[in-house]
Amino acid sequence: MTTCQQIARLIRAHQRFVVSTHLNPEGDALGSQIALGRALETLGKDVRLCNRDPVPGLYRFLPGTDRIEVVEMVPAPYDLLVLVDCGGLDRTGLHLPEQGGGKMVIVDHHLSSEGTRHGGHWIDAGASATGEMIYALIRELAVPLDKTIAVNLYASITTDTGTFRYSNTTPHILRVAADLIEQGADPWDNALRLYESHPEGRIRLLTAALGTLERGLGGRVAWVTLTSRMFAETGTAAGDTEGIVNYPRSIEGVEVALLFRQVGEKEWKLSFRSKGRVNVASLAETFGGGGHHNAAGCQVSGTLEEVTQRVLDELKVQLGD
Amino acid sequence: MTTCQQIARLIRAHQRFVVSTHLNPEGDALGSQIALGRALETLGKDVRLCNRDPVPGLYRFLPGTDRIEVVEMVPAPYDLLVLVDCGGLDRTGLHLPEQGGGKMVIVDHHLSSEGTRHGGHWIDAGASATGEMIYALIRELAVPLDKTIAVNLYASITTDTGTFRYSNTTPHILRVAADLIEQGADPWDNALRLYESHPEGRIRLLTAALGTLERGLGGRVAWVTLTSRMFAETGTAAGDTEGIVNYPRSIEGVEVALLFRQVGEKEWKLSFRSKGRVNVASLAETFGGGGHHNAAGCQVSGTLEEVTQRVLDELKVQLGD
Repeated sequence: MTTCQQIARLIRAHQRFVVSTHLNPEGDALGSQIALGRALETLGKDVRLCNRDPVPGLYRFLPGTDRIEVVEMVPAPYDLLVLVDCGGLDRTGLHLPEQGGGKMVIVDHHLSSEGTRHGGHWIDAGASATGEMIYALIRELAVPLDKTIAVNLYASITTDTGTFRYSNTTPHILRVAADLIEQGADPWDNALRLYESHPEGRIRLLTAALGTLERGLGGRVAWVTLTSRMFAETGTAAGDTEGIVNYPRSIEGVEVALLFRQVGEKEWKLSFRSKGRVNVASLAETFGGGGHHNAAGCQVSGTLEEVTQRVLDELKVQLGD
Repeated sequence: MTTCQQIARLIRAHQRFVVSTHLNPEGDALGSQIALGRALETLGKDVRLCNRDPVPGLYRFLPGTDRIEVVEMVPAPYDLLVLVDCGGLDRTGLHLPEQGGGKMVIVDHHLSSEGTRHGGHWIDAGASATGEMIYALIRELAVPLDKTIAVNLYASITTDTGTFRYSNTTPHILRVAADLIEQGADPWDNALRLYESHPEGRIRLLTAALGTLERGLGGRVAWVTLTSRMFAETGTAAGDTEGIVNYPRSIEGVEVALLFRQVGEKEWKLSFRSKGRVNVASLAETFGGGGHHNAAGCQVSGTLEEVTQRVLDELKVQLGD
């Protein structure tokens, strides 16, 4: 296991860097990537930020996103490729160059099985966000926190903790956030950007979804459905469904919430959310999916009625009826 | 101006306390009241917690709410009446006893004009929540933070900062919150209780409201409407509208959001929310209401069409068209 100090030593020993992150990057991925890139530049390093996917509109407010290049191959020559918020090269969607490539290191807070062939990895599953690890790394490198770093790391941390609502909210992460505000992060501006800048279609999609709300198994399960037609009528896409499953979950007495999203005529993506008692990862696994204890997903074929019935039958067992 | 140290000195000098707060108490009021009561008991004081209104269901998870008595008159005899999170006795809805009453002090983070006839007041408009002031007072009194105090103050602070999203989120309040977690506050449980335990009717009301979404003035204004009929059909009341106006506000390009709530056949309560550029307090004042720069309200008579048109005409001026 590579530690923060070892990563810092590797960084000091090299000059040419590429920093990348996973496909469909969100706030923790992008904030970590930009903040690390900025710190490396402050140290006088040559840095390129390279992703397979462009920056989603939601995150374009982050200072430094204009530095991110959309590529298919990691551009050579480089000494050190740093992957943040992902467990391996396959999650970046990028290819390595045939020549001119250097070492690779990973900085991530997700448990991962990828080996250390190219360099090393620093995995801290106890960190609330990869941004928390980048904060520690920047401190270790003795780089001063400037406003660009602070705003990006604040977005990282708030993305992954639901702005300090989820169970990964620790005293340490709150104190890190306090430091970041002192260096220029703005909590209200961050919240405005993350939670108060949605396209109108997203509200229309939420409205359509909430109109389908149903409950079952004595009220302990609640679900909403998004059909292909709803996406077409509101001009939205899969990325606009974020957070919708929280609404059925938020109902008193509900233990498990579901979101059914149509991806083909008889093809559905299911998202499961638990309030804590039911392990929805094992529920998802019975349908060939996976995830965490409180958040998981899978894909199931059939009509909506068939799929709903199959899931409720399985849930009935898990709820102990 | 009475300071934290002076309030602490008054507390040490007396034995019999009544702690009260404002009508329709919410998280900051109740959390501050219970935490202070608990600290006073730890000091060996005699304490009664007395409010005019009962504890709303949403806050009954707070440890110690069972200690709150619903009364119309402050029960005598007492030495010191402490009002938290409100600027004066009129906001409590309580009467003072004809005899047996003692001094009164106020601990509040709202600017207030009430005098100091009965004792003193400690107003800190820079505090994010009254709970932040109670935390300072408990530290000043050298009372150890136990779990009851921590859970209550955490709910206080998160209620008034939107769980660290609003512009009153300071480095200090985050460090206070970190301490509270170390003493037993649970961020996810707190969020579950505050944001994930709504009656189903509340979601149905939200759905009905979102179905009325309209925009005007080039998209810079968005509004939703709640009719008496919607409340009747969903079995909800005015208290269930909290947060609904945030949805129109959350749309990209919207500068001012409105919520129209019917309170009579031709009678509407209006809530205004601004993202910062427009001062909605002055907008509300032109209709005889009031509030803050970013959040204000008023009541207007007329048909929905008439009221909407009057407000849009006024807004057009304020938006500088």
